[in-house]
Amino acid sequence: MAEKRTELSDLGEFGLIDKLAEGISLNNSSTVKGIGDDAAVVEKDEHFALLSTDMLVEGIHFDLSYCPLPHLGYKAVAVNVSDIAAMNGKPEQITVSMALSNRFSLEAIEALYSGMKAAANDYNVDIVGGDTTASKSGLVISVSVLGQVAKNKITYRKGSGQNDILCATGDLGGAFIGLQVLEREKQTFLANPDMQPQLDKYQYIVQRQLKPSARMDIIHELKELDIVPTSMMDISDGLASEVFHLSKHSQVGFAVYEDQLPIDKQTYDTAVEFNLDPITAVLNGGEDYELLFTIKQEDHPKLEKHRDIHFIGHAQTLDKGNVLITKNGNHVPLKAQGWDHLSS
Amino acid sequence: MAEKRTELSDLGEFGLIDKLAEGISLNNSSTVKGIGDDAAVVEKDEHFALLSTDMLVEGIHFDLSYCPLPHLGYKAVAVNVSDIAAMNGKPEQITVSMALSNRFSLEAIEALYSGMKAAANDYNVDIVGGDTTASKSGLVISVSVLGQVAKNKITYRKGSGQNDILCATGDLGGAFIGLQVLEREKQTFLANPDMQPQLDKYQYIVQRQLKPSARMDIIHELKELDIVPTSMMDISDGLASEVFHLSKHSQVGFAVYEDQLPIDKQTYDTAVEFNLDPITAVLNGGEDYELLFTIKQEDHPKLEKHRDIHFIGHAQTLDKGNVLITKNGNHVPLKAQGWDHLSS
Repeated sequence: MAEKRTELSDLGEFGLIDKLAEGISLNNSSTVKGIGDDAAVVEKDEHFALLSTDMLVEGIHFDLSYCPLPHLGYKAVAVNVSDIAAMNGKPEQITVSMALSNRFSLEAIEALYSGMKAAANDYNVDIVGGDTTASKSGLVISVSVLGQVAKNKITYRKGSGQNDILCATGDLGGAFIGLQVLEREKQTFLANPDMQPQLDKYQYIVQRQLKPSARMDIIHELKELDIVPTSMMDISDGLASEVFHLSKHSQVGFAVYEDQLPIDKQTYDTAVEFNLDPITAVLNGGEDYELLFTIKQEDHPKLEKHRDIHFIGHAQTLDKGNVLITKNGNHVPLKAQGWDHLSS
Repeated sequence: MAEKRTELSDLGEFGLIDKLAEGISLNNSSTVKGIGDDAAVVEKDEHFALLSTDMLVEGIHFDLSYCPLPHLGYKAVAVNVSDIAAMNGKPEQITVSMALSNRFSLEAIEALYSGMKAAANDYNVDIVGGDTTASKSGLVISVSVLGQVAKNKITYRKGSGQNDILCATGDLGGAFIGLQVLEREKQTFLANPDMQPQLDKYQYIVQRQLKPSARMDIIHELKELDIVPTSMMDISDGLASEVFHLSKHSQVGFAVYEDQLPIDKQTYDTAVEFNLDPITAVLNGGEDYELLFTIKQEDHPKLEKHRDIHFIGHAQTLDKGNVLITKNGNHVPLKAQGWDHLSS
């Protein structure tokens, strides 16, 4: 009798996480929140501690033929910081584990580490430990982050109430379109190694892909304005996918206005150049690491003039679903086609 | 001009860690101890939080041709728990990240995870998060652990005073000799796939290799006996290597008595069968995950009758160095030849 074999690609990343989370029981009273949000929440006397981890794998998450090692190191830290930001917390310590093959020299690893140190400095976190080991092939980076948040300031994916305003920071789709540019330049280079990459006019979106920022600046501003979002997460898998997460956890639907979606001109123009729909890039491109959150209507005046927070929609009853309201007023069901590293 | 290229194998793991730790500054006042002990130490109001991480890489740390997936999952958790034990702490939460190629099915990952859940249960820790992603080849597991310890109970590698008694738990060398058995059976199987592995008489040492235990039982007993070791670490790279770590951090030398070294009969007999020196296996075999610690002389009576704690030596002035006192009374300089996954 053949053993049952279920392919991971049939499940997808979220399906696998759901499967694995089945039957996990929590033994420690200090565990406030386990699997299922941007970070785990642990009670530590006066505060909540926040714990999160992210793994970057060569050939899946990055391609060293166009990703400079310092940028990669920076990104590995920033994506973890972003998970803590998404809980309205402050990152404080990180550990860094790396598996590397012997094609990497000390100088290469120092370059990678220099980016991590730069990010640690920018985000005011301490690199406190890690593990360094060999690999048979390729580079794997695993960063874990410990942060903290005041108990009355924590934000989950759950918590949005009806009529709350849906907010997104920065601009979206840039990292995805930047990746298209890098992939095209790589193919051009492979076809003709004398060609130099033409990246000047794509500088912003290439940077969005290679060296994303975590929006700790927004977290600090929200604190100063005394605003606690009702729900929040970071946008790593694409806006539409994240709207569905907030919807599922908060048990509300969202109406998202196409004409309010933030897109940079370079993202827009380059999408058009690549025959890609800019709105699809905004909705389904990943890795922007902006924040998606909801606020109560009464907090709107405090943020109204903010140059980098965009009011892209509002929460509604769950039965109304998650819809995109197009420029001409049509209501289209929102579709999530987030990045899925297991099916790629 | 050629760029400088330093091979990682020339540096070794500890050399690399030292290089990378250079120029790391600590920005957070909550960071009590960064790189350089079994776990990082973070101040959390009443307690210290402990943070550690370990990465296991297929083809380097494990070979799936003889390592059952549930055992591997168990080990990935146990080695992290062991790092928290080594700080005299209690593990509470872990995150699990995995990179896996498409040769793994859902059933395989569930088998791996079942071992992690079993270990989580045994050590009373909660699996609170993680990251699951694809890899181009092989399996990489990265586990991070968050623990805690009372401020007056923490033990570092630093702290041993002269004349303190050096203690080791359990028995040593078994995991290393168990690995030799598994490797031999693998070669036999590869040469003749009809041969079935003959592991019955090696059951204990094979288990030592495949499914090590973290000695949380000892940590709990020390607490009950109101003993705080003066220094401690876990024995993952081989006893001799760890003695050098305690020596360096505590600025003392150690005299280790050959006739006090704990070795199981199966380890001894099998070492002889493999033409390996049993004492070398005890001193330099890795992955036993026992505890090595020092206590004040006055605490000795409390532990004297303990069946599983062995008094293998004592601390002396640094200038006397680290020496092995052989059965016939010779003083031989101790040599560390720990495992080094970077030169393999």
